[in-house]
Amino acid sequence: MNRLTGIHAVREALEASQPLDSLIVAKGSHGNRIEELVRLARQHGVPVRFEERIQLDRTAGTREHQGVVAIVAASPTARFEDLLKPRDPEAPGLLVLLDGVEDPQNLGAIVRTSLAAGAQGVVIPERRAAGLTDSVARASAGALAHLPVARVTNLSRAMEEMKEAGYWLVGLDERAEKRHTEVDFKIPVGIVLGGEGKGLHALVRERCDFLVSIPMLGKVPSLNVSVAAAVVLYEIVRQRRVKAVPSSTK
Amino acid sequence: MNRLTGIHAVREALEASQPLDSLIVAKGSHGNRIEELVRLARQHGVPVRFEERIQLDRTAGTREHQGVVAIVAASPTARFEDLLKPRDPEAPGLLVLLDGVEDPQNLGAIVRTSLAAGAQGVVIPERRAAGLTDSVARASAGALAHLPVARVTNLSRAMEEMKEAGYWLVGLDERAEKRHTEVDFKIPVGIVLGGEGKGLHALVRERCDFLVSIPMLGKVPSLNVSVAAAVVLYEIVRQRRVKAVPSSTK
Repeated sequence: MNRLTGIHAVREALEASQPLDSLIVAKGSHGNRIEELVRLARQHGVPVRFEERIQLDRTAGTREHQGVVAIVAASPTARFEDLLKPRDPEAPGLLVLLDGVEDPQNLGAIVRTSLAAGAQGVVIPERRAAGLTDSVARASAGALAHLPVARVTNLSRAMEEMKEAGYWLVGLDERAEKRHTEVDFKIPVGIVLGGEGKGLHALVRERCDFLVSIPMLGKVPSLNVSVAAAVVLYEIVRQRRVKAVPSSTK
Repeated sequence: MNRLTGIHAVREALEASQPLDSLIVAKGSHGNRIEELVRLARQHGVPVRFEERIQLDRTAGTREHQGVVAIVAASPTARFEDLLKPRDPEAPGLLVLLDGVEDPQNLGAIVRTSLAAGAQGVVIPERRAAGLTDSVARASAGALAHLPVARVTNLSRAMEEMKEAGYWLVGLDERAEKRHTEVDFKIPVGIVLGGEGKGLHALVRERCDFLVSIPMLGKVPSLNVSVAAAVVLYEIVRQRRVKAVPSSTK
């Protein structure tokens, strides 16, 4: 995990628009220079959170942090608005929305599969979600450098904007009676996946146009979220029969 | 990782047919009692390997191991012959064969998805493969307790036996021109997957009746092996339209 410590280093990074995953401020820190950093971070869309000083010492790896630590992102965050256009102008749009996936391994795996399946991006909330750290980049096997990920303050508001842009929202919910193979995916869609073991939040679930489930034939109650994402994404690829990029010949 | 150290403890476990993942013997150890253990292990189908004594000290967590350490399996190994019968008598057989998947996370994830997709078991080779350890059990989210896994000395020989039992073998190979959706999966099938980043061994590839690839639409050369397994397994579920186990109502 790359991090920047101290007011000067963090301000320079913010002013240079360096991709930052988050800014952490020690609780009880105050003063004009700290307040300016917080304002600057919010202006650049960098999530700010407050932590006890002792916890910050650990994150910083030093006590010489002047109350501020910035976590460097492995990849720049994309603007949500820029993600609404399909990557391939001949294919309907495809976005993956994650409602609180907290494990960097899962986020990385989902980014990798989303890119392979032709999605134009992934949307994650600022809070209760894994950030775009080095672990995510590693787990994505390099895909994070090629697929834009946008962080939004409010996932259900972003879903409303997608609907206005012509998207249909399909949420994965193990209690749904409709199977994931029973939806017509030849229209622009956003696939909405809940966090590990928690499923979708009520507000997010209500915003979905359809809820679908993946059939479970054995004694396991659910699939891993990155596996569930892959199963739905490749059902979309099958239905759309998109041309694959030319692969090396046999 | 549970382990047994010392000649007496290991012999007792072998004689009681306790599920063991492997027997490790210090290089240069000899004597009748060690030779008897090795013979007993082979008789029970427990893989035996030889390691430098200093490495064995580390695995054992003690130097008082008398040259032998047995790794306790998190799950008993199944007999390959017992796996050939489909779990659901009304559905065609479905087995997953792994040609050298070495990462316990991936093996666990594949066991979990195989159970969910209605496979009757997983087949792995004794060598160059993750054993049935606690990490695999954890990564399987409990599925390892419900799905039999068989270890075979020779994977291509096991494939021949499957063919004689009426199975068709479908290997995943990124260079194949046929897509995974272009195969008729309503017949008994064995899905053959290669190890991380290495693909199928030549001998195993030759034994397959079909080779198929999963289309890649983005700038990633391949999918994670557990994701690839999920995509193919759920294409089989879709084609077979097997009835799901009744889920809780909405």
